Amino acid sequence: MARFFMIRFNYKPAGTSPLSLISPSAASGPPALTLIQYNGEKIFEAEFETIEALLERYDPSMVNWIDIDGLGDVGCLKKLAAHFKIHPLALEDVLNTTQRPKLERYDDHFFIVGEMVYYNNEDVLCFEQVSLFLGAAFVISIQEERGHDVFERIRQRLRSGAGQSRFMGADYLAYALLDATVDQMFPVLENVGDSIEAVEEGLLAKPSPKSLTSLYEAKRLLLLLRRTIWPHREIFNSLIRDESGLIHRETQIFLRDCYDHVTQIIDIIESYRDLTAGLMDLYISSLSYRTNEIMRVLTIVSVIFIPLTFLAGVYGMNFNADLPLNMPELNWHFGYLFFWVLCGTLAVAMLVFFKKKNWL
Amino acid sequence: MARFFMIRFNYKPAGTSPLSLISPSAASGPPALTLIQYNGEKIFEAEFETIEALLERYDPSMVNWIDIDGLGDVGCLKKLAAHFKIHPLALEDVLNTTQRPKLERYDDHFFIVGEMVYYNNEDVLCFEQVSLFLGAAFVISIQEERGHDVFERIRQRLRSGAGQSRFMGADYLAYALLDATVDQMFPVLENVGDSIEAVEEGLLAKPSPKSLTSLYEAKRLLLLLRRTIWPHREIFNSLIRDESGLIHRETQIFLRDCYDHVTQIIDIIESYRDLTAGLMDLYISSLSYRTNEIMRVLTIVSVIFIPLTFLAGVYGMNFNADLPLNMPELNWHFGYLFFWVLCGTLAVAMLVFFKKKNWL
Amino acid sequence: MARFFMIRFNYKPAGTSPLSLISPSAASGPPALTLIQYNGEKIFEAEFETIEALLERYDPSMVNWIDIDGLGDVGCLKKLAAHFKIHPLALEDVLNTTQRPKLERYDDHFFIVGEMVYYNNEDVLCFEQVSLFLGAAFVISIQEERGHDVFERIRQRLRSGAGQSRFMGADYLAYALLDATVDQMFPVLENVGDSIEAVEEGLLAKPSPKSLTSLYEAKRLLLLLRRTIWPHREIFNSLIRDESGLIHRETQIFLRDCYDHVTQIIDIIESYRDLTAGLMDLYISSLSYRTNEIMRVLTIVSVIFIPLTFLAGVYGMNFNADLPLNMPELNWHFGYLFFWVLCGTLAVAMLVFFKKKNWL
Amino acid sequence: MARFFMIRFNYKPAGTSPLSLISPSAASGPPALTLIQYNGEKIFEAEFETIEALLERYDPSMVNWIDIDGLGDVGCLKKLAAHFKIHPLALEDVLNTTQRPKLERYDDHFFIVGEMVYYNNEDVLCFEQVSLFLGAAFVISIQEERGHDVFERIRQRLRSGAGQSRFMGADYLAYALLDATVDQMFPVLENVGDSIEAVEEGLLAKPSPKSLTSLYEAKRLLLLLRRTIWPHREIFNSLIRDESGLIHRETQIFLRDCYDHVTQIIDIIESYRDLTAGLMDLYISSLSYRTNEIMRVLTIVSVIFIPLTFLAGVYGMNFNADLPLNMPELNWHFGYLFFWVLCGTLAVAMLVFFKKKNWL
Amino acid sequence: MARFFMIRFNYKPAGTSPLSLISPSAASGPPALTLIQYNGEKIFEAEFETIEALLERYDPSMVNWIDIDGLGDVGCLKKLAAHFKIHPLALEDVLNTTQRPKLERYDDHFFIVGEMVYYNNEDVLCFEQVSLFLGAAFVISIQEERGHDVFERIRQRLRSGAGQSRFMGADYLAYALLDATVDQMFPVLENVGDSIEAVEEGLLAKPSPKSLTSLYEAKRLLLLLRRTIWPHREIFNSLIRDESGLIHRETQIFLRDCYDHVTQIIDIIESYRDLTAGLMDLYISSLSYRTNEIMRVLTIVSVIFIPLTFLAGVYGMNFNADLPLNMPELNWHFGYLFFWVLCGTLAVAMLVFFKKKNWL
Repeated sequence: MARFFMIRFNYKPAGTSPLSLISPSAASGPPALTLIQYNGEKIFEAEFETIEALLERYDPSMVNWIDIDGLGDVGCLKKLAAHFKIHPLALEDVLNTTQRPKLERYDDHFFIVGEMVYYNNEDVLCFEQVSLFLGAAFVISIQEERGHDVFERIRQRLRSGAGQSRFMGADYLAYALLDATVDQMFPVLENVGDSIEAVEEGLLAKPSPKSLTSLYEAKRLLLLLRRTIWPHREIFNSLIRDESGLIHRETQIFLRDCYDHVTQIIDIIESYRDLTAGLMDLYISSLSYRTNEIMRVLTIVSVIFIPLTFLAGVYGMNFNADLPLNMPELNWHFGYLFFWVLCGTLAVAMLVFFKKKNWL
Repeated sequence: MARFFMIRFNYKPAGTSPLSLISPSAASGPPALTLIQYNGEKIFEAEFETIEALLERYDPSMVNWIDIDGLGDVGCLKKLAAHFKIHPLALEDVLNTTQRPKLERYDDHFFIVGEMVYYNNEDVLCFEQVSLFLGAAFVISIQEERGHDVFERIRQRLRSGAGQSRFMGADYLAYALLDATVDQMFPVLENVGDSIEAVEEGLLAKPSPKSLTSLYEAKRLLLLLRRTIWPHREIFNSLIRDESGLIHRETQIFLRDCYDHVTQIIDIIESYRDLTAGLMDLYISSLSYRTNEIMRVLTIVSVIFIPLTFLAGVYGMNFNADLPLNMPELNWHFGYLFFWVLCGTLAVAMLVFFKKKNWL
Repeated sequence: MARFFMIRFNYKPAGTSPLSLISPSAASGPPALTLIQYNGEKIFEAEFETIEALLERYDPSMVNWIDIDGLGDVGCLKKLAAHFKIHPLALEDVLNTTQRPKLERYDDHFFIVGEMVYYNNEDVLCFEQVSLFLGAAFVISIQEERGHDVFERIRQRLRSGAGQSRFMGADYLAYALLDATVDQMFPVLENVGDSIEAVEEGLLAKPSPKSLTSLYEAKRLLLLLRRTIWPHREIFNSLIRDESGLIHRETQIFLRDCYDHVTQIIDIIESYRDLTAGLMDLYISSLSYRTNEIMRVLTIVSVIFIPLTFLAGVYGMNFNADLPLNMPELNWHFGYLFFWVLCGTLAVAMLVFFKKKNWL
Repeated sequence: MARFFMIRFNYKPAGTSPLSLISPSAASGPPALTLIQYNGEKIFEAEFETIEALLERYDPSMVNWIDIDGLGDVGCLKKLAAHFKIHPLALEDVLNTTQRPKLERYDDHFFIVGEMVYYNNEDVLCFEQVSLFLGAAFVISIQEERGHDVFERIRQRLRSGAGQSRFMGADYLAYALLDATVDQMFPVLENVGDSIEAVEEGLLAKPSPKSLTSLYEAKRLLLLLRRTIWPHREIFNSLIRDESGLIHRETQIFLRDCYDHVTQIIDIIESYRDLTAGLMDLYISSLSYRTNEIMRVLTIVSVIFIPLTFLAGVYGMNFNADLPLNMPELNWHFGYLFFWVLCGTLAVAMLVFFKKKNWL
Repeated sequence: MARFFMIRFNYKPAGTSPLSLISPSAASGPPALTLIQYNGEKIFEAEFETIEALLERYDPSMVNWIDIDGLGDVGCLKKLAAHFKIHPLALEDVLNTTQRPKLERYDDHFFIVGEMVYYNNEDVLCFEQVSLFLGAAFVISIQEERGHDVFERIRQRLRSGAGQSRFMGADYLAYALLDATVDQMFPVLENVGDSIEAVEEGLLAKPSPKSLTSLYEAKRLLLLLRRTIWPHREIFNSLIRDESGLIHRETQIFLRDCYDHVTQIIDIIESYRDLTAGLMDLYISSLSYRTNEIMRVLTIVSVIFIPLTFLAGVYGMNFNADLPLNMPELNWHFGYLFFWVLCGTLAVAMLVFFKKKNWL
């Protein structure tokens, strides 16, 4: 967590046509095109070179999962859009990789923008947009960056044919993808929790600027996660209440479960935010207390010794002692003793004063 | 309250089938299976070794309270689920012990996730999930940890047959269990209140880091309690407005009473949160005041004596007094007196200045 | 206002039957039972020894105001409940004296829990629960503590027969009681306002811990008042919108007026809360400013004199001046003068530096 | 703005009849009674001695604007109320001059409580209640204090007959009065804005307690304005949605415009509140920075010179240098030089330390 | 961003007729009148001297975009209003250039007040009101200040005939103008984000008042942007849900897209507000820490050396050493050594004390 995570957004110059499609600058190279086709009985999985080849294999009697990994090829997306009658604005949202997660209903399919959060190979937290199109017989998932994704486990479940996943429709597949998207927030939150706990332990013993930075980073990360997760709540809520027929009743129960996860994540994020705010208060209070204590010691020692030092300075003066009025104390028989008694009395008086002030 | 209470949550790796059932790592040993069967006339109570034996005894003409204490045996839960047609997702929620309290309606039963809060034998505050299934003739309660629970008093009321509890249906039993779950928050809140009051008393007299830690702990505990109690509001609200017929009209009056308790608990928690925030402010303000006072004393003493010490230092210099221009004061007849008058004047001037500044 | 006011709540052990009736521990002695019976033409008022005697006198053709002052006699309440078909849960709420104000509708009567706030004879602020049952021909008011109440003026109005109060039904009487309950908050708020104003005046001149405590106490009192008044809003709202027929149209206009009072009280409380928060900020800022000013004076004096004192110290050293390299300055002709010029230059340089820093 | 503005409220003792009418203590002298009667063709304007004389002149075929300036004569108000069938509670609200602005619907008229805000002749900000009764053919405006009002410009528009105002009904007149009431908040807000801007400019250069007081006063004034304006939103909202027929469709467009003004005022107030909060933060942060800087200078100078002064003190000690072990340095050939080298080294070491600490 | 941006509002004296039209004081010179007329086949574009000439060219069978750049000529606006039956209140809103963005529905057209935000040629951020009237065949855009606007790119798209813009109706043109208005907020936000990031980097290393000012300016700018963007949400929401027929179904999809942009902007603004608040906390905490550290060093050095200096002062006193009781230490054989041992012991004791206090 060495780097602060910025709030991302990109935009086209004001007044540009909303339908102009621009591949995000970060994208590079052609995307990987994969098709997984299955029903209760069989499963077919292949990677294709061109989108035309893939679309030829498309079979509406089975569930078709078309996965496009990378946004480097706008032409390929346009062909896909033409085939599935995807609205140009939806396509533009796919390419604008800093969309807010959302659900759009079109005539015969849903368009869902989600956000994956994961630690990449260098252990840096990444946010990656994933766009889903859900039709009666197909799910198209379009990922922002080629490479890492969080769907591998779902592919394995489909291949193995274990459980019920192969026997349910495209809506269940979409649910599974969204569920995987949401659930990978938990390990991230666990990390945040650990770092908050670490701060908590160190804070009272010795408040350090390092705890402060950790706290601020946690706060900032929570802000980003919150921005990402909140819109999901709405997405699932819409899906659960869907009446278009695209979502079957059995799947809705699963979506409800996923909605619960989202609620729990929001809940944890809010609690962590409260905790970090509390720790910030604790930090300042604790520092104030330490400063107060340091000042107290400084003050006590200074206030006792400063007058004494002055006194010692006085009797170190070189006034001509031969003149009768000058520094007669120096020649007193008990002069030195008198000096120490005076010092002692002053010091004790000060201590009594401090005691009364409750500073000792 | 030595230990801070962490926000708990556990999760399965993203992409795992939602229906995979895993016993929580903390669970150990087989659960205790108890059946209490009663109607207005008679009551039967027994502990069973196996769930099959228990289910054989099940009698839909009476109220059946099946209590499963401990989550160690997934097989047993599966058999139970099969018998009562419990949805696998509900079963998964039973096993995921960090669920948010909630109510799910299924065709012929309700599934309620609640949370018990209690001080265990070592006086440590524990949060324990309790899952309830409420059907027309049965209540199944599944507790997270074997041992301690808060239902003993209800068992006694059933056994003794006192009051109306034996004459009412399963819904009343569910109410009684939920009511017990909610009501044990009151002693916890009382504890929090006591600790806030203790801080309050000590704070103004002498702000200490101990008060600060107490405050933070109280704040944190209130955060946890708030997370636990808020969803109960929704649960009771749903139950009161239920139209499925599972909840009888007489029971709804009792649920309304319980809803009032929940509202009162929320109310108290919010008030305590306000108080702790106010005390935190008070702590910082009080420290600032003390620091200010200490600084004032230090400044007054320093500012008076520092110039005087300089003066004493000057007349302690060893410039060759034989040269006419060097330190003629030393040979003045009233030199020493002059020194003291100078010191006195300076000190009085300072005091006047401080008085004017309102620092004395 | 010497004592802090705690947030009160009492509770029964979790799992206890909701219907067990326990007299609050503070209650002592039997309650005072009073009946006021009136219609447009006549009025009857008497105190009774037993509830049976009182109930015998009950006349449904008139308005009956049964006032029970004190909760010491559970038996008496049970008889009353039996007579008016009061639900046991309502009775339990009457005895649980830390209820949140609320309105419950039963078949033929309303149950209202209100809260009186007043300064008692020792000028201590008291919160006292008052429970009202409003039927077609009766109002039962049950007060927590024997003695002080805020209804005396209403009794006088009834006795004198002045105004319209004798010509209207039980609903108007209930309104009058609730109105009196709400309106006695105004003098309390006036007190709070006075104490805030007092703090305001003292704060800028001389921030003291006393102002701080006053502020905290005001804050806390406002918290309690807010908790008490908010639920009243809901109560009046329900009464105004009532369609059961128990509340007549003319009375609803009066209830609306009372609702306005509640709104105004809430408004004032919120404003006062804002003010206290603002004053707390002002307190800290003002202290910071004073500390800053003190530090500035200390720093200026110290920074000017510390180097000079060092210099004086140097020329007070006793190095053997006979050795040619040791302290030749002491034997310079203008040594002493040179010393003062050096000191002056240093001091002026410092002052210029401070001036540039804007510290003078 | 020398005086802080208190939150005003007055109240009658709890339990007093809601209908008892008391003239506010501040009121003095009889009110000024004015009638302006107009339609599209002609206008009549006169001041009357008694309300009876005025009412005799009342002509329902024209628009009648009865203006009562001052609350000193309860009898007059009663006669008015009798004539227009005004509910006694409304009359009580007229006399209770600390009402929250509100709208009440009665059978054939509306009762509106508004609040005028203006700077009086001594440039002190005043809040004055104005009560409006709007019927089909009349508008009655009752002002709290005799003298200043904000309606003069409307009278002139009516007299001149310019624009459409004379051709529209009583509802348009009521709109015009309310609009004038609302619009005079703008200059007040402008004043607040100016004072905030002034604070802003001075704050960073030199944080002073004067800015602090200005800020607090602005905050407090905003609080009062907010309390006054918020309920107006509701009033206009009700009027716009009115279906009683008292408000004509054309007037509703104007009311919508006025509603926009209210929204804008609220908007500005909220923005100013945010700004003052931000400036308060800025003040404290800026002070902290200055304190920190002052401390840094003090610390650097002290830490460098305190050890040196000690050293100089050591060599000023009078140990008998004849004894071989006592202070041999004093007799070293390079003793004095050695002293200065030591001092220089120490000072440089300190400076390096401070540099490393980033304090220089 | 040298200048702070004030909250703008202007107003007419209270009581002025709502319909009086006053050209804003800033306006100067006659407006530029441009007409762009187009349909799918052809496009006509011309600048006119007078509004009459322009209106003559008006052709309801095409889409007419009338752009009036500058508010300097009220007469021209009145003629326009007469031609298109624009309500005088709408015209007044056009001239009152500090309107809150809003949408008003009139019988056959919509009136929309929007706000453009852009950096002008001197790189100063400007807020400029733009009023739109949308009818079946026309869009009238009225800009506050002559010169700069954000619509150039739209004109180019129309001229080039690229894309679909020429084939859609006036509603699509209005959408395009609003979209351009909204989208130019993104670069402004990007600037804010950059300045926040710059503060973030500098803050921990060395908290300076410059960061503070940057933060406050960012906060203030966000406040202004928030005020501007929030009402747009309502505008788009209304347009999307429009049922008047003025907005076609295809355009609604585009408006939904624009609504998403507004939501994203609000989202970013809220996140930035959270970040600036967090950075303000960080600033204060970081300063507190630095002050604490400085104080610690000062205290350690002072507390160690102040007693030692006193000691040195003592042995520099000139008490007559010939008297037996005066300063016998000076004549001790190991006196000087004893002094150093004493000093060392004291210093070590202090260091141990500090170590124990955890201050080293």
